[in-house]
Amino acid sequence: SRSLNLAVIPGDGIGQEVVAQGLKVLSAVLPQDVKLETKEYDFGAKRYHATGETLTDADLDALKQHDAILLGAIGDPSVPSGVLERGFLLKLRFAFDHHVNLRPSKLLPGVATPLAGQPEIDFVVVREGTEGPYTGNGGTIRKGTPQEVATEVSVNTAFGVERVVRDAFARAQARPRKKLTLVHKNNVLTFAGHLWTNIFTKVAEEFPEVTTDYIHVDAATIYLVTDPGRFDVIVTDNLFGDIITDLAAAVSGGIGVAASGNINPSGEFPSMFEPVHGSAPDIAGQGKADPSATVLSVALLLRHVGYEAEAAAIEEAVSADLAERVGKPARSTAEIGDALAVRVAG
Amino acid sequence: SRSLNLAVIPGDGIGQEVVAQGLKVLSAVLPQDVKLETKEYDFGAKRYHATGETLTDADLDALKQHDAILLGAIGDPSVPSGVLERGFLLKLRFAFDHHVNLRPSKLLPGVATPLAGQPEIDFVVVREGTEGPYTGNGGTIRKGTPQEVATEVSVNTAFGVERVVRDAFARAQARPRKKLTLVHKNNVLTFAGHLWTNIFTKVAEEFPEVTTDYIHVDAATIYLVTDPGRFDVIVTDNLFGDIITDLAAAVSGGIGVAASGNINPSGEFPSMFEPVHGSAPDIAGQGKADPSATVLSVALLLRHVGYEAEAAAIEEAVSADLAERVGKPARSTAEIGDALAVRVAG
Ligand SMILES: CC(C)[C@H](C(=O)O)[C@@H](O)C(=O)O
Ligand SMILES: CC(C)[C@H](C(=O)O)[C@@H](O)C(=O)O
Repeated sequence: SRSLNLAVIPGDGIGQEVVAQGLKVLSAVLPQDVKLETKEYDFGAKRYHATGETLTDADLDALKQHDAILLGAIGDPSVPSGVLERGFLLKLRFAFDHHVNLRPSKLLPGVATPLAGQPEIDFVVVREGTEGPYTGNGGTIRKGTPQEVATEVSVNTAFGVERVVRDAFARAQARPRKKLTLVHKNNVLTFAGHLWTNIFTKVAEEFPEVTTDYIHVDAATIYLVTDPGRFDVIVTDNLFGDIITDLAAAVSGGIGVAASGNINPSGEFPSMFEPVHGSAPDIAGQGKADPSATVLSVALLLRHVGYEAEAAAIEEAVSADLAERVGKPARSTAEIGDALAVRVAG
Repeated sequence: SRSLNLAVIPGDGIGQEVVAQGLKVLSAVLPQDVKLETKEYDFGAKRYHATGETLTDADLDALKQHDAILLGAIGDPSVPSGVLERGFLLKLRFAFDHHVNLRPSKLLPGVATPLAGQPEIDFVVVREGTEGPYTGNGGTIRKGTPQEVATEVSVNTAFGVERVVRDAFARAQARPRKKLTLVHKNNVLTFAGHLWTNIFTKVAEEFPEVTTDYIHVDAATIYLVTDPGRFDVIVTDNLFGDIITDLAAAVSGGIGVAASGNINPSGEFPSMFEPVHGSAPDIAGQGKADPSATVLSVALLLRHVGYEAEAAAIEEAVSADLAERVGKPARSTAEIGDALAVRVAG
């Protein structure tokens, strides 16, 4: 009999509520013969305040034992900015070499968008996850004085760029439109820009069926609001990917439905799946959070570990549920979770 | 009698066409007693191909003699990416210490926006112009090999951050809503983030009437499409400013109407004014480009050199012209320039 062994990290704020619904839908969709095991971990603000720890080596060893990780959200205003981000989330992405940060954007029928004219939107961003300006390289001298200098170093390697670019080409190749756009700022960040552009051009030769283009990150934000339909697969660096995927989420239905995977394609380490949204402390504990983004992250998780039919069933259920919401009163987090669980089971 | 002595750089592509209209409107609006002198400079792709030069020390000495600079657009596909950007545009911004990159966004009546519901948009971005990831610091080792490493160093100084933050506070103070938002990514780029955040908090004490807030750059892109009305003045670093001002232009009527100033507030060097759009080689020479962004850049130029009434007259003329366009056939670049010249003269 098969088994699926998950690490579950509800985290802070609405993380708790949405992860509960994610697990509910997961249990409902999994075939009977699959033994689901979950172990909950208490990372986040509470543990940090109690112990000063964000993510220890022992924690990493424990997490390594799982097939995959489901994360709600980490972050709380009581913790100084950067502590949990660098100490937990980025530490985990780097330690487990999550170099493919996968963020699909699809405007589902009936879902509201801030854009006029309800454009067709169906693309996926492959964001590099282990390099660029996110490495923590840099520093400060003369802190707090009028002579302070602070640097941030974006580190880009041929190794790191090539593997994520190749992954993105393979994903583009597998989609009907077979189109890949590189987003960077190679006219200003010329060192990193040349590396990205050269590798992109080189790897393109291995994928003759894939149509390619290049867009500067500033122009990409324009197209994301004026012509999002032009995008199929986008590959970009860690920081540009962070920025454009929030915008992509906003135009394709909001962060209530934006899912993401932090993927280690080799399987050497477990991959982690999480909604793009944060812990939203302002609405935590009120049953107001939309669990759809987490439920869709569960679908990405299932696809990653080989349950394609179950992943598709979840995506169809969320799509149908969203279409049905139009004009109806708002439901609670748990009500949406219940409805999705019924759909995937039925 | 007064005089205004301008350097005019039409540049490449549509730059030529739009600058001609900018000068037309400028001549029409200037009071009779002001002696307008202009000197044209041939920077851009043509000169680069002919001489290999982008901007020499002698060029900088010549430009220094002017009261201000009007730029069309620089860039052509025949020149490798980065050559004119770094060799001309950024070189000029850095040489003349254009540390306040001013980019207003106002959705004028009748102007189309990709956003649903025609929201109210009226804010200005103060983008730092001489530091951050734009300094050209960084480098490449083992170029072209599988072991290539490319770095980009964002350099941030207390001196550079404080002067632009103070400028932004002063601008917020002078506006009715008196609100200033710092946009950064201080939870990940913690070295630069702390510098920006600390200085922002410190300078805020000098401006007790200004309401302040802080938003991560990724979240800022969400607000720019879901709630742009929340912004009054934004201050941000060079790269984040580049990205969000293109998005800001897109939501507030497009880059056909987005103006910018590269300002040296001390007056030690001439400031430069340019449309946010590029040289658009695909439509160059066809009379299709909208000169409004350049004409509005002329207004920013006039305000900078002390002609507030004339600046306001241009802004009113462009606003009226845009409102009148609705439902009418498209006019040529020169026709729009003519109409604006008539309006400001009348
Ligand atoms: C919380 C933050 C560190 C994170 C990031 O910048 O990657 C978030 O914005 C995201 O996109 O997952
Ligand atoms: C052309 C390029 C160098 C420039 C920049 O990045 O600053 C442009 O995008 C702008 O915003 O003025």
